[in-house]
Amino acid sequence: MKKKIVLLRHGESEWNRENRFTGWTDVDLSDRGRAEAKQAGELLRREGFRFGKAYTSYLKRAVKTLDIVLDALDQDWIEAAKSWRLNEKHYGALQGLNKRETAERYGEEQVYLWRRSYDTAPDPLAADDPRNPRRDPRYAGVPDAELPLTESLAQTVRRTLPYWQCEILPQLARCDELLVVAHGNSLRGIVKHLKGIGDEAIAELNLPTAMPYVFEFDEGLGCTGDYFLGDPEKVAAAMAAVAAQGKK
Amino acid sequence: MKKKIVLLRHGESEWNRENRFTGWTDVDLSDRGRAEAKQAGELLRREGFRFGKAYTSYLKRAVKTLDIVLDALDQDWIEAAKSWRLNEKHYGALQGLNKRETAERYGEEQVYLWRRSYDTAPDPLAADDPRNPRRDPRYAGVPDAELPLTESLAQTVRRTLPYWQCEILPQLARCDELLVVAHGNSLRGIVKHLKGIGDEAIAELNLPTAMPYVFEFDEGLGCTGDYFLGDPEKVAAAMAAVAAQGKK
Repeated sequence: MKKKIVLLRHGESEWNRENRFTGWTDVDLSDRGRAEAKQAGELLRREGFRFGKAYTSYLKRAVKTLDIVLDALDQDWIEAAKSWRLNEKHYGALQGLNKRETAERYGEEQVYLWRRSYDTAPDPLAADDPRNPRRDPRYAGVPDAELPLTESLAQTVRRTLPYWQCEILPQLARCDELLVVAHGNSLRGIVKHLKGIGDEAIAELNLPTAMPYVFEFDEGLGCTGDYFLGDPEKVAAAMAAVAAQGKK
Repeated sequence: MKKKIVLLRHGESEWNRENRFTGWTDVDLSDRGRAEAKQAGELLRREGFRFGKAYTSYLKRAVKTLDIVLDALDQDWIEAAKSWRLNEKHYGALQGLNKRETAERYGEEQVYLWRRSYDTAPDPLAADDPRNPRRDPRYAGVPDAELPLTESLAQTVRRTLPYWQCEILPQLARCDELLVVAHGNSLRGIVKHLKGIGDEAIAELNLPTAMPYVFEFDEGLGCTGDYFLGDPEKVAAAMAAVAAQGKK
């Protein structure tokens, strides 16, 4: 039996629906997002997945997607670990702004850079901003030096990969199938690492919400292949829709 | 600040509603059970609880109660550990039978013994019964010698307390408030231990569904007091209703 890790971006959130930069803002799933999560769980069930453990972020759109998926699988009892390291990229001062309006104000090119450039981070939150994660008790255990006020994708990758390397992948030695429910950018960082995608090329990868993305591994935990579950046309259309979000 | 552990019995399940012996059968919450769980979470939120960690069983009526409570608290990100040791008492061959019909058939006294006697276990499931937990992958990690086909309350206590002693209580040294969402009988075992209730007297303790039961501890983790949150009259009425379930 091949070992597998399924990456799943959370279902549509309230702010995905409103086309706003979300980042670490803890917004809920939309009704559509809950339905997407249920569909993803039913698809995984039909494909016979039985997860040994699941992982998610500290953000409720991911936690609740995982809860819904596990329930659709009738695997509510599976151990689910949560880590801030799987959180979405922190979008700094852009958090809360509408993507289209931001494009009208700053230009599509600048928004594309903020959304997809590997090294460019949006302006940081001010230290006294109420949204500073230092004020949120859930991050009390995270050292100041690690807690972001904004992030580029490169910075997101640097805090996500240690968790992948130290927690998730080693667990695959102990069971055959793992589930990771996280976010567009934290997952893009993992996919970049697994597939050896370059800093520029990763800009073109747009992960659709709630479509299970399967990675296969050999006994030595080397990655041997990857594919989306479900209808390829639906997957392609969903990826194109994500890419179009920053347009005017 | 006093240290606190909140014990919470899951909200009404489909089989609570139908007045059937449930035990390890993995039945879902009823609509009323989901509403009860939400109310419990809102009550805990009004009282200002901020949990360091949460614990639940392998059974979805408890897991989903916990999910709903954490969401109502806006603490979806809290670490939630799951253990079969917090499962409900295994009701053996009684699982699935209606409590009132069973009382009509075997007499109220016998049903009372099965439900509340400390040492009496219902007839066990046959080893080849499809409900034998050995056939369920979620219990693959539990040794044969520990996996029940029926249980008395005494046996339930013997497998629940080690988890309380080795996992839950030591965690209280590291944070101030913990939440345990479990079942009528696994929680009765914990309450019996904490309050030093005798083997006969414990029969009279009927825990209502989804009413937060707070235990306070000193710095040495000694238990110093206990009380239910919420309207005392409502708590008393709910406890009386549980006691009446085994009547004809």
